[in-house]
Amino acid sequence: VSTLALDRKPEVDEEEEKGPSATGSAGGGNGKKEISSYWGIVPAKFTKEDGTEWPWTCFRPWEAYKANTSIDLTKHHDPATFLDKTAYWTVKALRFPTDIFFQRRYGCRAMMLETVAAVPGMVAGMLLHCKSLRRFEHSGGWIKALLEEAENERMHLMTFMEVSQPRWYERALVFAVQGVFFNAYLLAYLISPKLAHRVVGYLEEEAIHSYTEFLKELDKGTIENVPAPAIALDYWRMEPGSTLRDVVMVVRADEAHHRDVNHFASDLHYQGRELKETPAPLGYH
Amino acid sequence: VSTLALDRKPEVDEEEEKGPSATGSAGGGNGKKEISSYWGIVPAKFTKEDGTEWPWTCFRPWEAYKANTSIDLTKHHDPATFLDKTAYWTVKALRFPTDIFFQRRYGCRAMMLETVAAVPGMVAGMLLHCKSLRRFEHSGGWIKALLEEAENERMHLMTFMEVSQPRWYERALVFAVQGVFFNAYLLAYLISPKLAHRVVGYLEEEAIHSYTEFLKELDKGTIENVPAPAIALDYWRMEPGSTLRDVVMVVRADEAHHRDVNHFASDLHYQGRELKETPAPLGYH
Ligand SMILES: [Fe+2]
Ligand SMILES: [Fe+2]
Ligand SMILES: [Fe+2]
Ligand SMILES: [Fe+2]
Repeated sequence: VSTLALDRKPEVDEEEEKGPSATGSAGGGNGKKEISSYWGIVPAKFTKEDGTEWPWTCFRPWEAYKANTSIDLTKHHDPATFLDKTAYWTVKALRFPTDIFFQRRYGCRAMMLETVAAVPGMVAGMLLHCKSLRRFEHSGGWIKALLEEAENERMHLMTFMEVSQPRWYERALVFAVQGVFFNAYLLAYLISPKLAHRVVGYLEEEAIHSYTEFLKELDKGTIENVPAPAIALDYWRMEPGSTLRDVVMVVRADEAHHRDVNHFASDLHYQGRELKETPAPLGYH
Repeated sequence: VSTLALDRKPEVDEEEEKGPSATGSAGGGNGKKEISSYWGIVPAKFTKEDGTEWPWTCFRPWEAYKANTSIDLTKHHDPATFLDKTAYWTVKALRFPTDIFFQRRYGCRAMMLETVAAVPGMVAGMLLHCKSLRRFEHSGGWIKALLEEAENERMHLMTFMEVSQPRWYERALVFAVQGVFFNAYLLAYLISPKLAHRVVGYLEEEAIHSYTEFLKELDKGTIENVPAPAIALDYWRMEPGSTLRDVVMVVRADEAHHRDVNHFASDLHYQGRELKETPAPLGYH
């Protein structure tokens, strides 16, 4: 049936069988033996600057970047219209149960919230992709920009996962929240992209606030400033010896960039323009 | 309300107001004046190798590539299991009305079918993204690989759009077909990714066949071998003076690559493996 040939012994032997390319990391399948196939599919190989094998499959060397931490963290969109106020108070209302649930466990909070944060970019990118196809028109780069945002948020999750482990009831919660939030955001985006982007803009403002609190706890010493995970060092091109504090700094800068993009997108809709009329801020992080 | 300042006169004057950066092409918003905003968003600027401004927002210079047209076009997965046969005959059945509708109008056919072809990669990538978030696990690069496939198919559409224009009833048809196909593929992928990837594998085999027929008509002269659109020259790094025939050649090679990736993904599921266990073929086209 299958046109696949496995160059390896049965599953059971696998742990002892790790070849020289196995890193044992969470890089997604790097610890597995390679598969040769009729289809000529071979995994892409990249190398790091120091010549060693690139250990990540979720991003490639040229997608790594140095975060611009000098971005203005205080920018805020004053809610003036009814729609803006709806967005603002929705986000404020969502913060209430979140604060109660997590208290001051900012590591756990960051990890859990990133599972939600990666949804809007994917939903919006997907909807604009379908629209572009349906209408035979260009997207102005917005599909790519929004999918990039989703990927960036997923990388935040992959990073915080290395620092904090979810418990079973937290996993269950994420499952439920994703089901509700994905569909709610999809519906919101279909009805009013103006509102949907504004909501994300405000969510990002709250995220900046949470990460600032996280930094305070790290400085107070109530949360241990552990070394930065390997994936963070490579993704944000961080100096060797960087710590969790440095990670939170760059993640916070990312959130500020997402805030800008989403408020900007909402503003464009307020101007009665479609996103595609304005070139998207590609690689803006 | 809006934090956006427009550096331009009212809508009405726009056509006369095109600045030096306006290309008048379908590049998505390039013909519009730029907008300055409180959010500090400026469109990304890239340059071509010859120093001129990069005219495309849907892909960046380093995402262009030379298609590997030496790929084996005849590879085929023999349907053996019930699931494979279901996939195979579903695709064969879909070809029947398609052949009747388009007859020998291969330019129109290519354009219309690419609006459908760009759906599966987006759906699968989106579902794997949500799964990765929900389960706190890496995707092995498959999210990116499948979204890349969707983007590649969208670029096929953007290319064929320049050669063939859809009529109103064709637009209506695409609208209806997308609604049905998106949901059908989403459901199929949720129930059986094994089946879903196999279906795409067979769709791509048919696409190769259609593009081969397209080439025959071009060679016979029944379809005019017009110059390649500008976007195709940049996307596939084609020689100046390339023609529609060269475009169809590279697009056909892309389809053969998608065939490989999707049959491979289905094979992995047949082996009882999850995609994430095997590093994805990133940048495989
Ligand atoms: Fe984030
Ligand atoms: Fe964010
Ligand atoms: Fe295609
Ligand atoms: Fe394809």
